[in-house]
Amino acid sequence: MRVIVTGVPGVGKSSVMEGVAKAQRLPIVNYGSVMFEQAKAAGLAASRDDMRKLPADVQREVQAEAGRRIGAMADAIIDTHCLIKTAEGYLPGIPMGVLSLIAPQVVVLVEAPPGEIHGRRAKDASRSRDDDSVASIEEHQQMNRAAAAAMGVISGATVKVVPNLDGGLEEAVRRFNEIFR
Amino acid sequence: MRVIVTGVPGVGKSSVMEGVAKAQRLPIVNYGSVMFEQAKAAGLAASRDDMRKLPADVQREVQAEAGRRIGAMADAIIDTHCLIKTAEGYLPGIPMGVLSLIAPQVVVLVEAPPGEIHGRRAKDASRSRDDDSVASIEEHQQMNRAAAAAMGVISGATVKVVPNLDGGLEEAVRRFNEIFR
Amino acid sequence: MRVIVTGVPGVGKSSVMEGVAKAQRLPIVNYGSVMFEQAKAAGLAASRDDMRKLPADVQREVQAEAGRRIGAMADAIIDTHCLIKTAEGYLPGIPMGVLSLIAPQVVVLVEAPPGEIHGRRAKDASRSRDDDSVASIEEHQQMNRAAAAAMGVISGATVKVVPNLDGGLEEAVRRFNEIFR
Repeated sequence: MRVIVTGVPGVGKSSVMEGVAKAQRLPIVNYGSVMFEQAKAAGLAASRDDMRKLPADVQREVQAEAGRRIGAMADAIIDTHCLIKTAEGYLPGIPMGVLSLIAPQVVVLVEAPPGEIHGRRAKDASRSRDDDSVASIEEHQQMNRAAAAAMGVISGATVKVVPNLDGGLEEAVRRFNEIFR
Repeated sequence: MRVIVTGVPGVGKSSVMEGVAKAQRLPIVNYGSVMFEQAKAAGLAASRDDMRKLPADVQREVQAEAGRRIGAMADAIIDTHCLIKTAEGYLPGIPMGVLSLIAPQVVVLVEAPPGEIHGRRAKDASRSRDDDSVASIEEHQQMNRAAAAAMGVISGATVKVVPNLDGGLEEAVRRFNEIFR
Repeated sequence: MRVIVTGVPGVGKSSVMEGVAKAQRLPIVNYGSVMFEQAKAAGLAASRDDMRKLPADVQREVQAEAGRRIGAMADAIIDTHCLIKTAEGYLPGIPMGVLSLIAPQVVVLVEAPPGEIHGRRAKDASRSRDDDSVASIEEHQQMNRAAAAAMGVISGATVKVVPNLDGGLEEAVRRFNEIFR
């Protein structure tokens, strides 16, 4: 089963994915890393920073090739984003063309109350760049839900909402695991 | 006119549809029933339970064939779902491929306040399996709105929100009937 | 860069677009006007009212041809709607087929608190036809967010939310301008 996993920065997506990957003995595949490996092997980029400097059509080809590679895997927990917050607006992590290549069975939205996410980011020095207001975290999560619903309608995948509350990691992993039966 | 009608369990979708079908002299077509008749005629299933045991690609072909049959009807009120709540997450009732076969002119969302839906389910013994919390009904309706908006953008259909409040069935039918002019 | 700009009536979309067009020296293209010019040149319509009387398939062809013309422009700020409120429901301003012809880089959502929009409409006699309740303005904006997220996933465009608060036009223009770098 190919499962796309998404969530705003600070929601605890990595911890939830690791719990599920261990329980299900499934590999975690980072979509951005597959893209970078792809570009590196093709001699297009030596570092992650080089990726952003590639012409848009080359970036799109790298993105599609990564989608094809992941779509060829029978089972994977795919670490990516519904919408990435940028100055240009919310950037779709998996646009329609790539979504059809990955052909996921499930799209998971890891969520938490915006106030909790804000608190987690404040405690995490590496998240300082994501230090948004509670209202903007709420907006980001609402837009992610809409994008995930569109991804479901487009691909036929189910959309699973997994709350990851403070102190509730085990419960989040349990809820996520409901999709494997 | 082909009108897709959706709403969470307990929202009163059937009563609203029946009122509209009578006023407009239009047939109500249940999407799941058309799928089952399709599978039965092809010797694939003897009961509705058999349907879920069919291989995924056979299910998809049955789903598409049902979509083709409904798309060939000039006028129909199509009883289905935006998103069906399952353990694997919200399952799209009409994914993009089928949506293009049905080519609806309108997608209707029958809605009610989550607290009222919760109350209606509590009074209806047959709905015990849908006995969700008010918060989860709210989430389901929000996700349905997002899925319906995506269905509109994909197909070009309009998306009509029809509130069906306690004691307000006539008003709901009146609002729904606004689409026929 | 082709930027689709959307917002409910009374949100101040025109003022924001004019500020941005001046700062960026970009043309504002009204999608409905391009459609009308198209129909007029083809001898299909003499006035805007004639447009609505055209057969649906002719309207669709005019819509597509307008999309092709706008998609051929290197740079444009495109004045249109995510969802237009009609008696038949929310009508997608740029359905998927046209979206792929325009191939925008950004979809902008100009938003304001529903109460402020209600107040602006009340002061503007030409908006009397859009005199909705605060709750229905809130619903319209929520549906627009969902439609915009779907447009992003379908096209790969970013979705930029630009708040245009009472007395905050300059700040709205500044936020919009962040997409040009």
